[in-house]
Amino acid sequence: MALLTQDQIDNELNSLNGWKQNGKEIEKEFDHKDFVHAMGFVNSVGLLAERADHHPDMDIRWNKVKLVLSTHSEGGLTEKDFKLAKKIDAL
Amino acid sequence: MALLTQDQIDNELNSLNGWKQNGKEIEKEFDHKDFVHAMGFVNSVGLLAERADHHPDMDIRWNKVKLVLSTHSEGGLTEKDFKLAKKIDAL
Repeated sequence: MALLTQDQIDNELNSLNGWKQNGKEIEKEFDHKDFVHAMGFVNSVGLLAERADHHPDMDIRWNKVKLVLSTHSEGGLTEKDFKLAKKIDAL
Repeated sequence: MALLTQDQIDNELNSLNGWKQNGKEIEKEFDHKDFVHAMGFVNSVGLLAERADHHPDMDIRWNKVKLVLSTHSEGGLTEKDFKLAKKIDAL
């Protein structure tokens, strides 16, 4: 799995909604109605993550869930991160 | 719900296992076998939290889950935090 160039990262980010780059990671905060809905989202992301064998960091703050994606084994951003980000956005 | 004094906080912490105080919060990191087990734990905590109407911050890092408890409405630590911590430790 090759690391993406900055041009490729920029292109991928342009095709997504609300994700931003933070160095070697991309992140997005998702606002939900309340904790119950946030937990539903976390579980949906968890299932996608386990299927892809690629697991975002997830920070839960009552109704807010922040996700951070990076391919740690490669030391940066790869296609894997953007593929999962797209699946999450399609939830 | 009254804020606890530092003496009360120290007593409560002594009766718990692995929780430490960080200013107006208490926190603990839980290590699990893998992501699947971490998600099971997160869901168990989520159910306890919703029942108690008291929701810890939860940071998921694959097999690790860090919980942070504080009573934000009171601006510090109350009985609520330690009651929930005890229930979580009993999972």
